[in-house]
Amino acid sequence: MRVGENHFRSIWFDEKRNAVNIIDQRVLPYEFKVITIDTLEDFELAIKDMAVRGAPLIGATAAFGMACQMRRDPSDECIHIGWERLHKTRPTAINLKWALDRCKSALLKVSTESRAKLSMELAKKIADEDVEINRNIGVHGLKIIREIADNKSSDDPVRLLTHCNAGWLATVDWGTATSPMFQAFDNDVPIHVWVDETRPRNQGALTSWELENYGISHNYITDNAGGHLMQHGLVDMVIVGTDRTTSCGDVCNKIGTYLKALAAKDNNVPFYVALPSPTIDWTVRNGVKEIPIEERGESEVSLVRGLNKTGTVSEVKVTPEGSLGCNPAFDVTPAELVTGLITERGVCAASEEGLKSLFPDYKKV
Amino acid sequence: MRVGENHFRSIWFDEKRNAVNIIDQRVLPYEFKVITIDTLEDFELAIKDMAVRGAPLIGATAAFGMACQMRRDPSDECIHIGWERLHKTRPTAINLKWALDRCKSALLKVSTESRAKLSMELAKKIADEDVEINRNIGVHGLKIIREIADNKSSDDPVRLLTHCNAGWLATVDWGTATSPMFQAFDNDVPIHVWVDETRPRNQGALTSWELENYGISHNYITDNAGGHLMQHGLVDMVIVGTDRTTSCGDVCNKIGTYLKALAAKDNNVPFYVALPSPTIDWTVRNGVKEIPIEERGESEVSLVRGLNKTGTVSEVKVTPEGSLGCNPAFDVTPAELVTGLITERGVCAASEEGLKSLFPDYKKV
Repeated sequence: MRVGENHFRSIWFDEKRNAVNIIDQRVLPYEFKVITIDTLEDFELAIKDMAVRGAPLIGATAAFGMACQMRRDPSDECIHIGWERLHKTRPTAINLKWALDRCKSALLKVSTESRAKLSMELAKKIADEDVEINRNIGVHGLKIIREIADNKSSDDPVRLLTHCNAGWLATVDWGTATSPMFQAFDNDVPIHVWVDETRPRNQGALTSWELENYGISHNYITDNAGGHLMQHGLVDMVIVGTDRTTSCGDVCNKIGTYLKALAAKDNNVPFYVALPSPTIDWTVRNGVKEIPIEERGESEVSLVRGLNKTGTVSEVKVTPEGSLGCNPAFDVTPAELVTGLITERGVCAASEEGLKSLFPDYKKV
Repeated sequence: MRVGENHFRSIWFDEKRNAVNIIDQRVLPYEFKVITIDTLEDFELAIKDMAVRGAPLIGATAAFGMACQMRRDPSDECIHIGWERLHKTRPTAINLKWALDRCKSALLKVSTESRAKLSMELAKKIADEDVEINRNIGVHGLKIIREIADNKSSDDPVRLLTHCNAGWLATVDWGTATSPMFQAFDNDVPIHVWVDETRPRNQGALTSWELENYGISHNYITDNAGGHLMQHGLVDMVIVGTDRTTSCGDVCNKIGTYLKALAAKDNNVPFYVALPSPTIDWTVRNGVKEIPIEERGESEVSLVRGLNKTGTVSEVKVTPEGSLGCNPAFDVTPAELVTGLITERGVCAASEEGLKSLFPDYKKV
């Protein structure tokens, strides 16, 4: 995606530096900073500390992490260590395991000598695939937006609401939930986006920054506001991403998604989830019961980051002395609240039948 | 309520200074600062700028504002000017109109000479009544909490979730939603409170501060977290306040309340609203259609206040350059999502029948 005059992916191999570059999302949207990561520790920290975040990007990052690991030591042991350490960085997004399994399985099949090269090729391939997947999600999502636009009686834009950042920063490029937005803009379908702030980490600021860069009309709203907007007919469609979707269509996504899905249902607003197929966990059915929900540090709740008066990135403590925050990072939206899943292969019902109709080869996915 | 060693109301007439004192809630919970207000401009600004906030306290403040006005000029014209200017400070909480109507009607009946004294007596009476009303709300609410405690199979505390601050700071004393909590604590009924942050103004920090002062177990959570907690059986009861409740039981309260009500319904968690009868607007029926929703400034969304590293109250800007916030301050929870209304006269269904059963004399209320 464009940042100023340049095109960036959220992660790439820098041939000159012979290392992997990422955009440090901890300081976005206040500072645009590219950092180089190379050791396994660098990759672990980048994922844990959310310098990179978003299920698809976490998967690609893990693949690059494994590749850097193989350049150092291509032994079987190192494959297993890489898998273990990268896998435990974050528990909820399934793309992490998907990418690591794919790397491990490919690498164990070949000689140690060929692993460094192969693993870097594979990481680049996973990144390229993610870009193409997300572009296709946009194509399918745009059809839905266009249909809503065609059915509108007024010239108002199609008003979309999104939660968290399922933008290009959460993927390698395009984003999942944002891909249809970017393509709507490119195709002159008028849209306005309500961007949920998404406390505690305010990834809505990342989404706003992406939309602002692209020139898409939007407002940054508190996580509390969406229900009210829907009650007053000001939301035509909700579109969010997911960190893990079960084989039955339950959707695990950033905490608070479930509340928006309830409000959408209550107000007959279509609620769509955009996802690349590696985000589907074919091994689990009931999201509320089976998906592990990450508990993150309380300081993410008690400290809020932004720009102070002097324009420096800084934090303020919002909780009173003695009060502790509690920080579950994801929730699960049951399939019955989901109007449809937008995948790279098309749109389907959030159900086992729906998913299997698009992915009859799912065991090989 | 206790603050350290002392007992405070949120507003009182200071005989020594011969003026009205309030606690400046704009800097709470970071600083405890009492300020004196006297002119009509002081009262207008205190309400508009939310140095005082919360429907019952706004009502009492308006009454004191009228009293100070009468000490300066007890003419009919000044009664009307006071009513107009104070009434338009904030549009949603009905207590403001209720208190101003009561003052106006009483003052117009008596001679100009007696108005200064009468209006100050009336303001004090309204404040005293509010305290007694809220104490009674606590008595009735406690019965519900006790019943839940008695039916719990474990020794776990009763886990309550609340949104915004319907605490003693939002009233003259005791609070509405918090009154049953304080009384549960006083009566050794074990409770734990999940306190919604309540962006954009983070009044959850006020509630946390009140609970921490009183020694009540609690966690400060993001507004996104409540649905997830309910899905996992971690909430036994929701209890919130209201800024205006219609004659049919629709509840207008701080933005985001509706989302918690939907989640409560979806998870069979009882959802109660605590309210003094002056918060009932007998003239409106359909809350979504009829209650004016205040739109507040965008800077409340884009700027977050807290303590910086040096311990100074300061603000950080959380939105990226170019992105604008949008700030509806209230939403309406339809009556069908409300388990019951806890009033000073007891608990009733959120319906016309329910309210009229407790307030058959409602026209005189």
